[in-house]
Amino acid sequence: MATDLSRKEELPELTDRIIASYYDVDLINHLGHCPLPSTEAVIEIAEDLKEVIYPGYRRRQNLHHGNVTYHIGDLIDGLHDKLTEQFARALRHEDSIQRRRECGGEDPNVDYEAAGQLKAIAFLETLPQLRESLALDVEAAYDGDPAAKSFDEIIFCYPGLDAITNHRLAHELYRLDVPLIPRILSEWSHSRTGIDLHPGARIGPRFFIDHGTGVVIGETCEIAGDVKIYQGVTLGALSFAKDAEGKVVRNTKRHPTIEEGVVIYANATVLGGDTIVGANSVIGAGVSLYESIPAETIVTLNKPDLRFRDASMKKTS
Amino acid sequence: MATDLSRKEELPELTDRIIASYYDVDLINHLGHCPLPSTEAVIEIAEDLKEVIYPGYRRRQNLHHGNVTYHIGDLIDGLHDKLTEQFARALRHEDSIQRRRECGGEDPNVDYEAAGQLKAIAFLETLPQLRESLALDVEAAYDGDPAAKSFDEIIFCYPGLDAITNHRLAHELYRLDVPLIPRILSEWSHSRTGIDLHPGARIGPRFFIDHGTGVVIGETCEIAGDVKIYQGVTLGALSFAKDAEGKVVRNTKRHPTIEEGVVIYANATVLGGDTIVGANSVIGAGVSLYESIPAETIVTLNKPDLRFRDASMKKTS
Amino acid sequence: MATDLSRKEELPELTDRIIASYYDVDLINHLGHCPLPSTEAVIEIAEDLKEVIYPGYRRRQNLHHGNVTYHIGDLIDGLHDKLTEQFARALRHEDSIQRRRECGGEDPNVDYEAAGQLKAIAFLETLPQLRESLALDVEAAYDGDPAAKSFDEIIFCYPGLDAITNHRLAHELYRLDVPLIPRILSEWSHSRTGIDLHPGARIGPRFFIDHGTGVVIGETCEIAGDVKIYQGVTLGALSFAKDAEGKVVRNTKRHPTIEEGVVIYANATVLGGDTIVGANSVIGAGVSLYESIPAETIVTLNKPDLRFRDASMKKTS
Repeated sequence: MATDLSRKEELPELTDRIIASYYDVDLINHLGHCPLPSTEAVIEIAEDLKEVIYPGYRRRQNLHHGNVTYHIGDLIDGLHDKLTEQFARALRHEDSIQRRRECGGEDPNVDYEAAGQLKAIAFLETLPQLRESLALDVEAAYDGDPAAKSFDEIIFCYPGLDAITNHRLAHELYRLDVPLIPRILSEWSHSRTGIDLHPGARIGPRFFIDHGTGVVIGETCEIAGDVKIYQGVTLGALSFAKDAEGKVVRNTKRHPTIEEGVVIYANATVLGGDTIVGANSVIGAGVSLYESIPAETIVTLNKPDLRFRDASMKKTS
Repeated sequence: MATDLSRKEELPELTDRIIASYYDVDLINHLGHCPLPSTEAVIEIAEDLKEVIYPGYRRRQNLHHGNVTYHIGDLIDGLHDKLTEQFARALRHEDSIQRRRECGGEDPNVDYEAAGQLKAIAFLETLPQLRESLALDVEAAYDGDPAAKSFDEIIFCYPGLDAITNHRLAHELYRLDVPLIPRILSEWSHSRTGIDLHPGARIGPRFFIDHGTGVVIGETCEIAGDVKIYQGVTLGALSFAKDAEGKVVRNTKRHPTIEEGVVIYANATVLGGDTIVGANSVIGAGVSLYESIPAETIVTLNKPDLRFRDASMKKTS
Repeated sequence: MATDLSRKEELPELTDRIIASYYDVDLINHLGHCPLPSTEAVIEIAEDLKEVIYPGYRRRQNLHHGNVTYHIGDLIDGLHDKLTEQFARALRHEDSIQRRRECGGEDPNVDYEAAGQLKAIAFLETLPQLRESLALDVEAAYDGDPAAKSFDEIIFCYPGLDAITNHRLAHELYRLDVPLIPRILSEWSHSRTGIDLHPGARIGPRFFIDHGTGVVIGETCEIAGDVKIYQGVTLGALSFAKDAEGKVVRNTKRHPTIEEGVVIYANATVLGGDTIVGANSVIGAGVSLYESIPAETIVTLNKPDLRFRDASMKKTS
């Protein structure tokens, strides 16, 4: 009972056919010389950033006011270098795409490393203000969830806080016109939390997503302060405008606007770039809303049908 | 083309501003001396526990009745030590929180290590009974899913079984009043499976969650035996009572009661602490239910609207 | 303050009780000598396969047409060996299950390694054609999502593409009658993406799942070309036929058929093996559909109820 080594002689011919397919189907290769941003590096950067934002919760546990400066100074120094390298790769790649992914297509007059460094420092400068904003999100989670026992519990294990932390970081990168990396960061967050927040979405203060699995918030959403959203809620596009050639039109407002104090319950769907949910409205579980509603509106599904089972139903269900 | 080292001279000043924010925004630091429980340690404990509960499936593959005693004895010994340490940290932290997270705030008259050890042993003592309970859950999955080919397939790869295994462990910790760690365990499970079961929920025998992504079961749910739940189902809170100061009231029954033999289909939402779903009822896909229903009831959405597309619709959708 | 070592003397007695439960509750052990497939090995195989399908995006970044042959040849050679071993384990285990998991129950006349090798090579032979199919899926994602900035962004970070890539691989294994491994692969994909595609589902060309968390597509679904599906959509079973003994009947068509060009919006549920969604139909968000609809149909939920909040509502919600 063993494998037959002579059958392995077929493998070089198979390899050749796979290689040939890299010429025939060249849409999904990246065979040039210009290195892409690394997903692993972006994840490491995100973990470093969270150590800076929430010190003492994760990696280094015995931090105190006497040693924290060394720890944070070291992290910031390393973040500068990692961000510069990854941003430079993303900027070079973005330029190359314009010329159909020939890596030689990058612009020889652009110093991508210097451009990456400028954006890296601009991004790091936003961290003190981001901490203020995230502290308000932690408070909103505590105020909004009777099951929360302490702030520490929220910082330790609430996926909604993890998602909004990643989002506020990704949104700063998006505002700084860093290509590709905001989306890598947001999809990593999506994979961990089940919460899909496009880096472009503009989200106001004291935002709280409870439970969160299945939440989708699209690129051009605008969300005011004190909004609370439950699992499975979609703030999405209704339909896409297409141009004369039938291609979808990009860069228009496609997603809703949510005003102050709105609560949206589980699995509700709000669609459309012109849809405005007025302040302090409540959208019930499972509702699908395609139109604007005024402030202070309560929207619920029609009552479901009730009927009683008979014996035949019991068998089949 | 290179980064400009002189620009790095700005970084110490930035570090100082971040450190200053640890004083100004001190809600989201943990800068004391008392080590928190470690998420990595809790995950390692969970993996060890699953090796004890389902021996031979994962880590050690050539186990047989002749060598399994050594393997399990070794795991139990290590679990005792790991649980004791993590429980002691959680108990010390819980006491400190009462005094506003000054770590010196722990009670000098409490031996947290001894308290942790007592709870660790009490928890390990529940394992034989937990195995009986989980074997019933495996049978319920096999009986409830025509796509299941064998018990082994269920143990190997059903996220619903993974979630209920983690839940039954977390619920024992919750009953033993171990702080923080049950929630770390349940959110780790949530991240892996998309299934969010609060450790406090009381779930009867032969429970089956199929597919499971997006399921949310709240802290004060009570679920009887032989209940079957599909993906996207929420058993949640309807609204929160607030006290005279407008703060949410904690520790009340906020989530529904589900009686024996109920089936709840995909994306249905059942809300409210007074809501009772009577025995053998069936809740259809997408239903939102805010009131009690008697036994043997079938609840479905109203029929959807049908209409036919015209040419203009085709363009936009 | 320390743990009490004498209390550890209880542990051997506890270990004995756990071991005893392996005899009493023997449904959920795997205590024989026949090694099961390894989840870790299956994951490693999946990562290798993606490196072959999408070269240059992930692991090895400086690939070009001059060095890619060595890299891919090496991967294919390793994949042959890994697949052969894991397939052999799965085939041996499948035979053993028939005889109630006594590992000696495997058939002494079957050469499982040789059978595994045949299937491994047959599987690897499908890769060039799979690349063609996946390139069409990438194009469909770009055409279907205005937020997509480039093909590279889709390959790098769209969970929908990750899920359909894993699915097309798992479906080939399913067609080759490899036991257990297709399901391990699909549940790993489910855990990463929140998208649960049963390996048996037949999915046509240019398929696009956007966002995707909570999508469930059942084993006997048939999906034609150019179908687009959003997050939270279930294509599931309505109810299960049971035989005279009350056991569920396996191996019947239980899941819907979706024709060309259909779009299904967020959180819609389509159930039943006889349900056919006609070509170019649109299923709105949150709809539950249990019956067939003709081509070109638009199905939406009834309009939700709107009402205005009064002061008492504000307090409770």
